[in-house]
Amino acid sequence: LVSKLPEVGTTIFTVMSQLANQHQAINLSQGFPDYPCHPNLTAALAEATNAGHNQYAPMTGVPVLRAAISQKLSLQHGISVNPDTEITITAGATQAIFTVIATVLHAGDEAIIIEPAYDSYAPAVIAQGAVVKRVELSAPSYQIDWSLVEQSISNKTKLLIINNPNNPATTNFSSEDLNQLAMIAEKHDLLVLADEVYEHLVHDDAKHHSVLSHEALRSRSFAIYSFGKTFHATGWKMGYCVAPAALMAEFRKIHQYLVFSVHTPSQYALAKHLEEPAHWKGLASFFAERRRLLADGLNKAGFELIPGQGTYFQLAKYTQIQPQMSDVAFSEWLTKEIGVACIPISAFYASGKDDQVVRFCFAKELATLDKANERLLKLA
Amino acid sequence: LVSKLPEVGTTIFTVMSQLANQHQAINLSQGFPDYPCHPNLTAALAEATNAGHNQYAPMTGVPVLRAAISQKLSLQHGISVNPDTEITITAGATQAIFTVIATVLHAGDEAIIIEPAYDSYAPAVIAQGAVVKRVELSAPSYQIDWSLVEQSISNKTKLLIINNPNNPATTNFSSEDLNQLAMIAEKHDLLVLADEVYEHLVHDDAKHHSVLSHEALRSRSFAIYSFGKTFHATGWKMGYCVAPAALMAEFRKIHQYLVFSVHTPSQYALAKHLEEPAHWKGLASFFAERRRLLADGLNKAGFELIPGQGTYFQLAKYTQIQPQMSDVAFSEWLTKEIGVACIPISAFYASGKDDQVVRFCFAKELATLDKANERLLKLA
Ligand SMILES: CSCCC(=O)C(=O)O
Ligand SMILES: CSCCC(=O)C(=O)O
Repeated sequence: LVSKLPEVGTTIFTVMSQLANQHQAINLSQGFPDYPCHPNLTAALAEATNAGHNQYAPMTGVPVLRAAISQKLSLQHGISVNPDTEITITAGATQAIFTVIATVLHAGDEAIIIEPAYDSYAPAVIAQGAVVKRVELSAPSYQIDWSLVEQSISNKTKLLIINNPNNPATTNFSSEDLNQLAMIAEKHDLLVLADEVYEHLVHDDAKHHSVLSHEALRSRSFAIYSFGKTFHATGWKMGYCVAPAALMAEFRKIHQYLVFSVHTPSQYALAKHLEEPAHWKGLASFFAERRRLLADGLNKAGFELIPGQGTYFQLAKYTQIQPQMSDVAFSEWLTKEIGVACIPISAFYASGKDDQVVRFCFAKELATLDKANERLLKLA
Repeated sequence: LVSKLPEVGTTIFTVMSQLANQHQAINLSQGFPDYPCHPNLTAALAEATNAGHNQYAPMTGVPVLRAAISQKLSLQHGISVNPDTEITITAGATQAIFTVIATVLHAGDEAIIIEPAYDSYAPAVIAQGAVVKRVELSAPSYQIDWSLVEQSISNKTKLLIINNPNNPATTNFSSEDLNQLAMIAEKHDLLVLADEVYEHLVHDDAKHHSVLSHEALRSRSFAIYSFGKTFHATGWKMGYCVAPAALMAEFRKIHQYLVFSVHTPSQYALAKHLEEPAHWKGLASFFAERRRLLADGLNKAGFELIPGQGTYFQLAKYTQIQPQMSDVAFSEWLTKEIGVACIPISAFYASGKDDQVVRFCFAKELATLDKANERLLKLA
């Protein structure tokens, strides 16, 4: 067997979560809540399975869920999305991302990834025999210089992968970013994979600028969403892809042979849960308190916070605490010695670029964050 | 966008199920039960989600489920399978199959598919830029001539895909088949993808010969299983892959970026359900009654039955009823005019080879089969 992914190890999320468990550290590394998801949601799942929704869903997803998503998109962006031809339910956003990449890229094609980047994009590209072109951003602003993005385009480039709001950079596109992206994508006739799983996790008055709200971009984008992130149920592995019908038709050719269809009772439960817009509209305020609490603890411990606009992560420089340590060494040290696990940002750069920045997840019980803060105080 | 799968349309299962719905036909086409799965199973799912098992499972699957599978394999085959390194939980058998193929095949490699074949194998191979080599079997025996299999091997061949018991051929390997397969795989140093999702659906006294029970094969096989088939819950999309640690390590590299992990509460529910071996041991007798009932109806209607040894499908020649019709035309006609939907076997041959054979699913309520038989009687 010749490895398809010779350079790949275990994801940083698994590595750090395991290390956290080993050392009984408070796990602020991998992005998942430690509080329960909404009781309506679990009740709806119990109801759906007991009602007998346990056989194959249609390959594209159950009609009530696609209709509910179309309805949500209309409320959210004022757009009309055809649930039959433009929406497909997936086994989480990760499966949707892999499927887009497998749909678009042939061996030898190029895809552009803006780093720091979520760790599944590059391996998915490489698994197609395609080539990753990287544009590196730097702490603390992580702003995209779109002219650098454009310079990395060649005549082999087929796909631009963006993540907005960005994990791990915690940035959020301005409408000017969207315009720049659209201009470049049109000029070079590129498709766009827009990972928008944190669409509802933007802070304070920040606004999420979706590719779906931008007509020129919408016509050439696969937009990816996650029920796990939005409804605090990461373990359900439910997401969806929105794309124009012609692109979606090709996506579905891969999807139908990659997984065929997705967990049926969860689809019914999610359709019901979407009926109540409050279930997805209140997220910013839900997270604001948690974000402030963690920020407070990190500040007191001597971290230098990097202001973010979205996601449920907080970036911080630790240089005042451990000036000599690499971010990997620091993350391990913090986990083992202080009992708080985080993620080193160098893991999101192929080059291993190290800005001495680590990422903390604040999608946690207030009590968990309090306890983490207590431990972090030892650093002060 | 250059299509990755230019020749692919909608799967025959979706096509026939939709046609059945349109014409209110009794749907004996796509393979799924119309009776509920075991109430213990749905109760266990409700319990797991209510107990808060709703966040990411480990990438490889939750430990209790992998342990329960290892225990089952020990009971079943008397083998010891390491749950940490040799078992991965997948989003159904289809995702496991795609992942094996994506793990093993690079662009230009060849894989051997024995036809008639389940329809996801070839597109998954083609999506890797790899090449399908086909060996065609014929009605009514569908026996494998292993020397023909060996002749189709070239120095580019990396993978042999087998399906045992076979859907749609309804055959079941003898131990001699396993030996032949092992001999060929060893001689040409090939890996084996063994789709064994119908392992528990063998008729009467037939015995399932798994690659896991054959030491030489086990060392070079990815064996794939489906909880959906075994526990009558096709819509849960839960399955698993068993492979030696070195092969599994490569499988997991793709798996972790293709889907990362699988529906957490279902994993806990399945672990609990596996504790009771009667849940998977009684399947042959459960299906025997259904098989006899459908066979009786088909016989009376003038079909010529092709004796099968496994799966929950019955093959039949319709030549005495409609001698001139292609199997596709016959399946459409039977759906529209008689109100019983079936699957044309030519859909499982790339060449469209037509032996005038169709496939009926008998994983149905006795009342459903009675009603189908009533309609089929019109043909007598
Ligand atoms: C699939 S595990 C990764 C979870 C996550 O989104 C993150 O921590 O960034
Ligand atoms: C994934 S739909 C196909 C179901 C099935 O296994 C069959 O009908 O053969």
